[in-house]
Amino acid sequence: MVYSRTDLALESREMYRHNIEEKSEVPGVEVNEEDSDGILITRVKIVSKEGEQALGKPCGSYITLEVPGLHQGDPHKYQRVCQLLSDEIRRLVDAPQKGSILVIGLGNRNVTADSLGPKTIEKLMVTRHLFEQIPDQMDDSLQSVCALAPGVLGITGIETGEIVRGVVDRIKPSLVIAIDALAARRIDRMNTTIQIADTGINPGSGVGNSRQALSRDTLGVPVIAIGVPTVVDAVTMANDTVGLVVDAVKEQAGADSAIFKMLCGMNEQDKYQLISGVLTPYVGELTVTTKQVDSVMDKMSKVLANGVNMAVHDDITLEEIENYLG
Amino acid sequence: MVYSRTDLALESREMYRHNIEEKSEVPGVEVNEEDSDGILITRVKIVSKEGEQALGKPCGSYITLEVPGLHQGDPHKYQRVCQLLSDEIRRLVDAPQKGSILVIGLGNRNVTADSLGPKTIEKLMVTRHLFEQIPDQMDDSLQSVCALAPGVLGITGIETGEIVRGVVDRIKPSLVIAIDALAARRIDRMNTTIQIADTGINPGSGVGNSRQALSRDTLGVPVIAIGVPTVVDAVTMANDTVGLVVDAVKEQAGADSAIFKMLCGMNEQDKYQLISGVLTPYVGELTVTTKQVDSVMDKMSKVLANGVNMAVHDDITLEEIENYLG
Amino acid sequence: MVYSRTDLALESREMYRHNIEEKSEVPGVEVNEEDSDGILITRVKIVSKEGEQALGKPCGSYITLEVPGLHQGDPHKYQRVCQLLSDEIRRLVDAPQKGSILVIGLGNRNVTADSLGPKTIEKLMVTRHLFEQIPDQMDDSLQSVCALAPGVLGITGIETGEIVRGVVDRIKPSLVIAIDALAARRIDRMNTTIQIADTGINPGSGVGNSRQALSRDTLGVPVIAIGVPTVVDAVTMANDTVGLVVDAVKEQAGADSAIFKMLCGMNEQDKYQLISGVLTPYVGELTVTTKQVDSVMDKMSKVLANGVNMAVHDDITLEEIENYLG
Amino acid sequence: MVYSRTDLALESREMYRHNIEEKSEVPGVEVNEEDSDGILITRVKIVSKEGEQALGKPCGSYITLEVPGLHQGDPHKYQRVCQLLSDEIRRLVDAPQKGSILVIGLGNRNVTADSLGPKTIEKLMVTRHLFEQIPDQMDDSLQSVCALAPGVLGITGIETGEIVRGVVDRIKPSLVIAIDALAARRIDRMNTTIQIADTGINPGSGVGNSRQALSRDTLGVPVIAIGVPTVVDAVTMANDTVGLVVDAVKEQAGADSAIFKMLCGMNEQDKYQLISGVLTPYVGELTVTTKQVDSVMDKMSKVLANGVNMAVHDDITLEEIENYLG
Repeated sequence: MVYSRTDLALESREMYRHNIEEKSEVPGVEVNEEDSDGILITRVKIVSKEGEQALGKPCGSYITLEVPGLHQGDPHKYQRVCQLLSDEIRRLVDAPQKGSILVIGLGNRNVTADSLGPKTIEKLMVTRHLFEQIPDQMDDSLQSVCALAPGVLGITGIETGEIVRGVVDRIKPSLVIAIDALAARRIDRMNTTIQIADTGINPGSGVGNSRQALSRDTLGVPVIAIGVPTVVDAVTMANDTVGLVVDAVKEQAGADSAIFKMLCGMNEQDKYQLISGVLTPYVGELTVTTKQVDSVMDKMSKVLANGVNMAVHDDITLEEIENYLG
Repeated sequence: MVYSRTDLALESREMYRHNIEEKSEVPGVEVNEEDSDGILITRVKIVSKEGEQALGKPCGSYITLEVPGLHQGDPHKYQRVCQLLSDEIRRLVDAPQKGSILVIGLGNRNVTADSLGPKTIEKLMVTRHLFEQIPDQMDDSLQSVCALAPGVLGITGIETGEIVRGVVDRIKPSLVIAIDALAARRIDRMNTTIQIADTGINPGSGVGNSRQALSRDTLGVPVIAIGVPTVVDAVTMANDTVGLVVDAVKEQAGADSAIFKMLCGMNEQDKYQLISGVLTPYVGELTVTTKQVDSVMDKMSKVLANGVNMAVHDDITLEEIENYLG
Repeated sequence: MVYSRTDLALESREMYRHNIEEKSEVPGVEVNEEDSDGILITRVKIVSKEGEQALGKPCGSYITLEVPGLHQGDPHKYQRVCQLLSDEIRRLVDAPQKGSILVIGLGNRNVTADSLGPKTIEKLMVTRHLFEQIPDQMDDSLQSVCALAPGVLGITGIETGEIVRGVVDRIKPSLVIAIDALAARRIDRMNTTIQIADTGINPGSGVGNSRQALSRDTLGVPVIAIGVPTVVDAVTMANDTVGLVVDAVKEQAGADSAIFKMLCGMNEQDKYQLISGVLTPYVGELTVTTKQVDSVMDKMSKVLANGVNMAVHDDITLEEIENYLG
Repeated sequence: MVYSRTDLALESREMYRHNIEEKSEVPGVEVNEEDSDGILITRVKIVSKEGEQALGKPCGSYITLEVPGLHQGDPHKYQRVCQLLSDEIRRLVDAPQKGSILVIGLGNRNVTADSLGPKTIEKLMVTRHLFEQIPDQMDDSLQSVCALAPGVLGITGIETGEIVRGVVDRIKPSLVIAIDALAARRIDRMNTTIQIADTGINPGSGVGNSRQALSRDTLGVPVIAIGVPTVVDAVTMANDTVGLVVDAVKEQAGADSAIFKMLCGMNEQDKYQLISGVLTPYVGELTVTTKQVDSVMDKMSKVLANGVNMAVHDDITLEEIENYLG
């Protein structure tokens, strides 16, 4: 399980259930599904240590919106998704926020598939400086919002967590929202799924390395993480296609055949290493992505930015936001 | 064979030999290999209809330079590759050229992995306008060179071949050099291999659709095609990993086992469709690429541009070119 | 007059009248003005050789839309301007077009203030290839449209006019529309004014060098030129500010004073050279522009693209275009 | 004086001396000039309150390298300037640094003429994370270096000074180097002059607003500021050309003439407002820049990054840096 990389709690759950037994829910996990006119909303809640272990993710709520064709630019779908995203963010954040909201755009703006966070930041209605400069002219319905794209370790030489903590210590926001590009396991979730979580985010992923996480523990304020899978790890994809062949063998030769047992006996780690062997001659991280990734990033960052804009400012419409931003 | 997509004649040959019998050469094909201090130069020459059929590519010479680590930016390797590329281009073009040389940068500049052609064009020493404006000041060692990035069908609505023929009819070059991003089958050839061919190029690939090819037939002048594989087709990669499992089964269960026969009985088309099933929920072309593709394109376009610059102008050094271009 | 650079017929007329006598119209020129709810539409028609000489531009119609704040992104203004632009294009093109319409995006995409043409091309509804590939599925209200961004002389080594003529000879369009970034004389016209002309366009400007013009004469089909001034020439701006001082002197010292006569005696050429002296130590073309030029180009190219989209396709709304383009 | 905007201490001094008396040095200011084979090095040292008042800049050293043609890409000149820049930085920083050096890239990466800081950051040899991850493999000659591009107020809603102080508090560097695009008064200094100062930098300029300055006072560590003028303010340029006419009047009519007295009687503020009147109809900041600004920024950021790389790491050559960065 550890070997197939996904940032979606939804997929961690699918993998767990696929491996063990399809019917029952993962222990320590509560799930609620809702279909909103073709958009599937799944709310996965990890409620215990057992659930944390099973899914490899910390306790908390993980909501996904699965929107087939999201990246294709239908304007009606776009408006609905902005509204749904705004609604789900508001569900996760209880009370109205008194202090500023700080939005962090994670990722490397020079690597297209990783540029979602920095691109989203640039489309936000940022107001904190206006509340300081012209407080009398600011409408009550507006929230104080500020933003930061801290860059990535390879360019800054500083852990993202350190930069964010330095800024949080100084400006003392009441809430942090972190935006990031994610990796999915399933190709059809790429660029079509939005995950919102109240557990923060770990640049580098996994439960370990928590010192660098952006979370309530490290920052002292609630942290909402919002992301879209923009790539599928190439090794993961290869792994999954091998699984299909194993399934075909099972159908033909039967689950009792020696060959099927041999294939199944190959544990996850062996399988992963077999496949890595094909891919590793290449130096650099291999990902499966779509050729249209450049234009898809523009669209997805607009969806995230406006979902956040509508969530944090009161009674503001998409049209008003687009007027404001010009 | 038709189902694994590669633009490299080298790989078409590998696949042919893998499927039939490893030892003998492909009929109608002549091959010559040379190791130049760690850089493998392979010259595949298709000399008959039989060779065309076997490799699915038109008669002519296909030279590959395989340069491990080419995309990583070692300056000494970079200088050697520019020189080797220049030498191989000069081998393919017999006599010195009297008229202009027209370099075509194929591909979509807004899709990073497809932007190699347009990016290369921008780094060329273009001189044709200077020969017209200030002929007295032009050095004899310089060649008249011009360039065009015609764009892609989805943006222009015009077949690339039509645009190029229109321009060729008007400026009547003595040679056309076409630069394009290619697809490889093997991951380790991505961003590390350069192919030079004297057969022209077919935007869209394959032997058919020859009306739109850029070739001596359609343009009336020799056409050299130069490309670097920047992606591996995701279906191809999945296909190849399945092959690994089949090999593992063969080793364990023996080539005579029923299950191995079943797996082998699955013909290429069935296998391809099985795998396509996993990938097709996603709308858009899926490719395996490296996260660093943006910076890799900058480096590779510089290598191609300077290889061409050194090939077409006489007695000019890399340093002089870099001075000239500033 | 020759020394203040403007691409707007409107400004050539203003300068002529300023220099000679304010009241009367320029001989050989007919002018019609219309205020459409804050947008000033001026239609300058040069009808004779005398008019050509006076304004330094060829006979034909030049329409300007002056839209204060156009570059600031008010969505209602944006919609109105797209509609007005579409209406004025349709006024200039008499009959419905049977063949394809070819849209040329002039300028250098790597120089922000010059990228208006190439950026506009990318936002067009291009359909010519669809009429060839899937004619049965094409709606009657759609026009066959194709596009080309030919690049600039310094990068291609080929005169833009040659490239365009080569392509026009091959695809034989019924109409050419050329899009370009222009230079204005007055700062307040920068990024706020659209000029539409039926006289074609001359990459490099002026009446001379007509061999390279894109016009009915050189291409054999009607040519509509559409542009927005994105820069003001720095020398022009300096020149105009000096004029202000001269006016101040006149007011104080009187028009009969020796000093005023001296200043006025300084002819245009002397004045221009005096000012050029201050600016010429810098190698390269100096322009006055706005710091926001990058984002302004995105907005202006969208206005031009959609004005053209609405003009060439029948009964299509802005919303339908935005759905189509995604 | 206040009305002509320049960030160069060199030009503040020129303006002061021009207005008062050419011969004597500005009180409280010490100047040293050196010609290094065509590159003019001027070291302006403001040593007292009187000097601060006269030049409108805080006490400290301001060194300029004036390099005609710097932006044109001659590789030999490029190497010399990197070395000179490195030498001057080392002159300003006394002792070897024990802690990390933090380099701040100021400015807006989406506004080409303002992108110098962020672009420079991306070309640095950043090592701080390597000293933490693989201390055993780090060479003694290397310095721990980290970097940050904090963005601009309009996008983040946070004063740049606040972000930097937050990060400085956390990582406690021993030295801060701030990189920024500047404004010059004279056109021929644009893109050809580098200023290095040990007084820090004030995003927003001027002596006031010191709360937001990046300086030893606010950050508690030495701050070196390095910048290149990339624009000339349009109002400044207009103002200067008017000065030329006044000079011409003086020559013709004599310094005693009534008209010359009238012109000179017009105080700086009146003149500035007269000129602003011509330019202000346009909303947005107007600057004079070169059309080639996009490619010039690439070259200048490379010069600054490598000057800094050579200054902070010991015994490292330009060639080694370029190998390292690839």
